[in-house]
Amino acid sequence: MTLSALETLELMSGGVTTPQAFRAAGVGAGIKAAGLDLALLVSDPPATAAAVFTTNRAQAAPVLVSRDHLARSGGVARAIVVNSGCANACTGDAGLQVAREMAAEAARLVGCPPEQALVASTGVIGVALDIAKIRRGLPEALNALGRDQGSLAARAIMTTDPFPKEAAARLSIAGRKPGDIVIGGMAKGSGMIEPMMATMLGFLTTDAAVPRPLLDRALREAVDDTFNAITVDGECSTNDCVMLLANGASGAGIDETTYETFAHGLRAVCLRLALGIVRGGEGATKLITVTVTGAASAGEARRAAKAIANSPLVKTAIHGGDPNWGRLVAVAGRAGVEFTLSRAAVAIGDTVLFKDGRPYDDAAPEAAAYLRNTDVTVSVDLGAGAGSSTVWTCDLSAEYVRINAEYRS
Amino acid sequence: MTLSALETLELMSGGVTTPQAFRAAGVGAGIKAAGLDLALLVSDPPATAAAVFTTNRAQAAPVLVSRDHLARSGGVARAIVVNSGCANACTGDAGLQVAREMAAEAARLVGCPPEQALVASTGVIGVALDIAKIRRGLPEALNALGRDQGSLAARAIMTTDPFPKEAAARLSIAGRKPGDIVIGGMAKGSGMIEPMMATMLGFLTTDAAVPRPLLDRALREAVDDTFNAITVDGECSTNDCVMLLANGASGAGIDETTYETFAHGLRAVCLRLALGIVRGGEGATKLITVTVTGAASAGEARRAAKAIANSPLVKTAIHGGDPNWGRLVAVAGRAGVEFTLSRAAVAIGDTVLFKDGRPYDDAAPEAAAYLRNTDVTVSVDLGAGAGSSTVWTCDLSAEYVRINAEYRS
Repeated sequence: MTLSALETLELMSGGVTTPQAFRAAGVGAGIKAAGLDLALLVSDPPATAAAVFTTNRAQAAPVLVSRDHLARSGGVARAIVVNSGCANACTGDAGLQVAREMAAEAARLVGCPPEQALVASTGVIGVALDIAKIRRGLPEALNALGRDQGSLAARAIMTTDPFPKEAAARLSIAGRKPGDIVIGGMAKGSGMIEPMMATMLGFLTTDAAVPRPLLDRALREAVDDTFNAITVDGECSTNDCVMLLANGASGAGIDETTYETFAHGLRAVCLRLALGIVRGGEGATKLITVTVTGAASAGEARRAAKAIANSPLVKTAIHGGDPNWGRLVAVAGRAGVEFTLSRAAVAIGDTVLFKDGRPYDDAAPEAAAYLRNTDVTVSVDLGAGAGSSTVWTCDLSAEYVRINAEYRS
Repeated sequence: MTLSALETLELMSGGVTTPQAFRAAGVGAGIKAAGLDLALLVSDPPATAAAVFTTNRAQAAPVLVSRDHLARSGGVARAIVVNSGCANACTGDAGLQVAREMAAEAARLVGCPPEQALVASTGVIGVALDIAKIRRGLPEALNALGRDQGSLAARAIMTTDPFPKEAAARLSIAGRKPGDIVIGGMAKGSGMIEPMMATMLGFLTTDAAVPRPLLDRALREAVDDTFNAITVDGECSTNDCVMLLANGASGAGIDETTYETFAHGLRAVCLRLALGIVRGGEGATKLITVTVTGAASAGEARRAAKAIANSPLVKTAIHGGDPNWGRLVAVAGRAGVEFTLSRAAVAIGDTVLFKDGRPYDDAAPEAAAYLRNTDVTVSVDLGAGAGSSTVWTCDLSAEYVRINAEYRS
């Protein structure tokens, strides 16, 4: 998708409070041993809300509660409350009750019906979330709410992410007044104090007014191309969710005629956040773009690209700077998709290493030199059709093993 | 499957030459920089042959040639020739020609039609196999053939496997004269001088006379429960194959009435070899048995068990001795199978850590102590039905990353 000449997209620094009429806070509520662990995001006008949740069948309590609230509110939200340090997953009925009270308390403080508050949690699975800490922390967060506090909220949702992930974009649509809208977002990825499932959480805001069906569609499309196209270790958490609030405060409305522009901007913000998650993946030293072409369908291309992106042999080879194209062929061959070896091709960066059924090993030193970069691309043509897909992953390092093998202390 | 009281199964030391009328050799042909790299296995009487091959769509030349020879010979083989140090995969038409010549030369020396010789290769992908080295090595192997040389053959098929894998079993069927038959085997797994796909090769022999349909069935069933139930890193090689020769030299024949006994013995030999491959997996320090029960079907149980066995978070947790049951729940939940959290259960060894929707964290120290063992079992009940499956894997260590990230020198 490309922008028309009448539209501009400006990626900018900022986050969830960059769009108008959003306020946020990040405070320490004592859920973690130290540091920020409770974020509150408020839209001053009631916002249209869309969300996508983990497909894991062991869904955490906050996922179940947020899904229920979205259904009961008809897709309207005023507040999102997020804690780190405890996933509130596999915690049974007691955990559900805690997630409900967490939303209810936030709603009471903000002044909206309970179902207009959404909740998310990330941290250790199977440990009870102490509602007393949430009750003590929320009033503090309410007092701290500010238009300039988005960065603290982005920090409060981190576990041991090496850095916070924020992004924002301004969209101008020529001839539309008021034409400028802003989209902001924050996300957290993998990397934790205690080894556990790495929850992916994303929160997006916009001051555009977007009807709920368009908001839903834009979120699903953007997530499919960005958050759903990244992998650190092939694991899907019990708590993953991405939420999007559109509060209309800019006065600009999105309709079918401007949908593509909005979707483009949303995708750009999501992609920046998603790539931040990969760069901050546990033990990651490289961002790897995996491009698959020549697939029988887009779905088969995605499947092959994900197989490559999750292959420990590919991830370790790239970690070691080894242009080991044989591993790429072998993974493509086992990915369960149509694959024709005699028409397949493999490139690392722009260097073709296998094509027309034969290796080009003379090019290996050039490819090895390229793999010293931090951002690298590997490309596989399956030789079977016209489908293509791009996914992003990180390398697999001994540090990943260290992070995840250490006993929880 | 259990043996009836009239049958005995004795696992014994030995390998491919323990059954009668099999001879083997392992020699150095200069394919590797040093050491044994060419194995020859000969059945003195023509043997009934069965084989299973990799499902990878990038099939190596020796896989294509052996499959073709089995079809053309009607399932009869006299010889198997195997090299390590070079996979002869992704080598195009030239590689196919080399694999055919390798079989033809072995057949000429042994004195059988070319299609009664099978071939297998393991090593680096995309490198040409030098037929001149095979031609020089095969006569030496022929001269070295012996009833006591099975162990050298088992060594010659290794890449950097930390130890050779051999197994044998004697079956007695009461009231049958001559009743004793022997099944032997050797296999290689992962671990290589140069980082590349870890090919799994297995070669099985028996001096029973087994009609081809029963031999095929026994091999497929045994492989499904053993070699296909192990995983080191979720990768499926371009060269994987398991071959079984039955030469009838014991005078004992297998028919439908004794099939189960034979299948039981074959499975026992395959399991011992398969577990050897896991124990010798790259960087492995532990053998992990993953048992899934309560699945909607046996297929769903296998799928969930494989997802757990390939999960880097599970494998690193066990490597670190962390009884992190939340990761087991989370992987079961994302495995794409029916899963009911409220009826699910997780145990590490005999210690239940999650059941009836709630954690049993008091038991965590006991489970952590158990995880200090070299051989450990983790069990997940999906709470969805009566299907079950067991698979075997190893832990994921920093050594795995080191082995696979080092640049090919």
